[in-house]
Amino acid sequence: MSSATIPPAARTVSTDLRPTAVIYCEANFGLTDGKTANGLVRHSETYRIVSVIDSVEAGRDAGDVLGDGSNGIPVLGCLDDALLDAVATTGTAPAFFIFGMAPTSGMLSADERAIVLHAMSSGMGIVNGLHEFLNDDAEFVSAAALHGVDLIDVRRPPRKQDLRMFTGRIAEVTCPRIAVLGTDGAVGKRTTATVLTKALVDHGIRAVLVSTGQTGLIQGGRYGVALDAIPAQYCAGEMEAAVLDAFHGEDPDVIIIEGQGALSHPAYLTSAYILRGSLPQAVVLQHAPARVADGQFGRVTMPTVESEIRLIETFADTKVIGVTVNHEHMADAEITAAIALFESELGIPATDALSRPTDRLVEMVLAAFPQLDTQLLVTM
Amino acid sequence: MSSATIPPAARTVSTDLRPTAVIYCEANFGLTDGKTANGLVRHSETYRIVSVIDSVEAGRDAGDVLGDGSNGIPVLGCLDDALLDAVATTGTAPAFFIFGMAPTSGMLSADERAIVLHAMSSGMGIVNGLHEFLNDDAEFVSAAALHGVDLIDVRRPPRKQDLRMFTGRIAEVTCPRIAVLGTDGAVGKRTTATVLTKALVDHGIRAVLVSTGQTGLIQGGRYGVALDAIPAQYCAGEMEAAVLDAFHGEDPDVIIIEGQGALSHPAYLTSAYILRGSLPQAVVLQHAPARVADGQFGRVTMPTVESEIRLIETFADTKVIGVTVNHEHMADAEITAAIALFESELGIPATDALSRPTDRLVEMVLAAFPQLDTQLLVTM
Repeated sequence: MSSATIPPAARTVSTDLRPTAVIYCEANFGLTDGKTANGLVRHSETYRIVSVIDSVEAGRDAGDVLGDGSNGIPVLGCLDDALLDAVATTGTAPAFFIFGMAPTSGMLSADERAIVLHAMSSGMGIVNGLHEFLNDDAEFVSAAALHGVDLIDVRRPPRKQDLRMFTGRIAEVTCPRIAVLGTDGAVGKRTTATVLTKALVDHGIRAVLVSTGQTGLIQGGRYGVALDAIPAQYCAGEMEAAVLDAFHGEDPDVIIIEGQGALSHPAYLTSAYILRGSLPQAVVLQHAPARVADGQFGRVTMPTVESEIRLIETFADTKVIGVTVNHEHMADAEITAAIALFESELGIPATDALSRPTDRLVEMVLAAFPQLDTQLLVTM
Repeated sequence: MSSATIPPAARTVSTDLRPTAVIYCEANFGLTDGKTANGLVRHSETYRIVSVIDSVEAGRDAGDVLGDGSNGIPVLGCLDDALLDAVATTGTAPAFFIFGMAPTSGMLSADERAIVLHAMSSGMGIVNGLHEFLNDDAEFVSAAALHGVDLIDVRRPPRKQDLRMFTGRIAEVTCPRIAVLGTDGAVGKRTTATVLTKALVDHGIRAVLVSTGQTGLIQGGRYGVALDAIPAQYCAGEMEAAVLDAFHGEDPDVIIIEGQGALSHPAYLTSAYILRGSLPQAVVLQHAPARVADGQFGRVTMPTVESEIRLIETFADTKVIGVTVNHEHMADAEITAAIALFESELGIPATDALSRPTDRLVEMVLAAFPQLDTQLLVTM
């Protein structure tokens, strides 16, 4: 299918120097397992996203699929369509093919291998966020050499001798640290953390984001580690070290830390290491009120915000300072009602990072850390 | 220093078929970082331990150093002494050199590398529980080929494509599961789990132990995984799979799961994955009442039994059914007092797996799972 439904003139004409990239997200764009693609379409510092491949949503605008409104990035039906489209709009094939799905197994299927090899033979470098490393695979390595393209394994952890143990030096970090945790995986923690960081910066507060997953790193996060690829022994230490790097590298007013999974999750527990490694004084909790448990991982009910707050505050010496809503399956009036209910029942601010003014996120942080506002006045 | 202080006649003369092994634990035997050696001296199914190398404790009996009473295994001052001693008592060099320390960094120093190479040139295979894998090191690999010896990297995780994700299939396991957790690392969880399992088996209850650390695996545990070497993404799944393997392989009455670190620990949090992956109905909590926080990892106070129980029972749908005491730095009367205090304050049984009759461990389990006793009567 071609991208004829989106006129090229509607797309952003960019003179930026970022390399172009197409995101592969077959049958998953806009869905949970497409979260890497969903995130990159919303925010990408490293790559200029020229299209998304997903035959199910082909012909639509990527922003519309995500419910964010049109963003001029077309969804196309296959790699060949994406190649043709990129040549038509940019004059050349995309520089990179980003594998934009996060399947549970973390491994490529036979069909997916063939598509990746096709992208390489078309001159694209590969950005791979899976647990399977293309640089460990003889077929991909020889294809990369043959076609002169790069294989970037985003999740590859540091060499074992370079992994860092937890030291307690996190106590050296004098600025506030706020972790954005959630009640589930793929619930919008990274998106809220990204929007929150930008809102604080726009407000004149020097905030820096520390990423903990592959999507944040592909998006261009300068500080972070793909925690779920790290051997458990080193998870708290690598988290601590990433925060120390951000602190010493940026001298920020506040550090925002992206959460992973949920502390209540049956399997995705790296938020436990995030809490211990970054010792956040505060937590913002992301929750999808309309999400229903699907039985995956044997889970039949979703946690409540109340139970997650109790668990987080028992597990770590921290305080949940606000709730952010993921509005999936919710009408606007339902979002408003949910925000009002959380605020009245919990006595802390609530908002939706995507559908409500981002000032509310700044207010949430300033209510907990008024010194950030004072600091702002002093430095202005 | 020679082993002249321990007459060879006092040692166990064994006709068993286990390969002999010397344990290297320089300056750490009996201490926290020597826990692999300490455990192997107490219990080893795979290897027959012929001596321990530690110049600090050289000349003593290994059991005496551990406070367990004499066990006929000498502590010697250096590798050459251990070689001479093994030749004198067994007629040959030990078949294996076990690196019996668990340094925080997980890596070999230059001196340690030289000693390992010396052991290999003396004909010993190497059993390595560190995070650094000898099979990835060109110098060790070529030395192994030259001398015709094996390099066994106990902590090497399965190949990435063989790592297992959590599925929820743990719900298939119909027998009770009891995790032995603790309030700290190196506090005796594995020892208590081992003693508990043996006591249950001696009582006619088919108990099987699932190991979660390198020491348990070197000791010969048939089921288990060195969890801290597993990428975080797969920790819950590998834990679940090890319990499923034990359940389907042994059809046991009860499964005992070795804990790691502590749920309250600043860095060693794999007990979080143990709780979610094995879904234990019950927890036995190991605690060292006389242990003082040493500031490592920035920790200045030890958790109490009460706070750890609250954390465990908030984090997981389980119940702490008993407390076991690590009697380090305690006189016998103090152990008795601590046991009485825990029982009266917490209302659950308490004992010391090493210094008190093991029947008390069996009673602790039967108080929580009376059906195990009924089952015993039915099958008798």
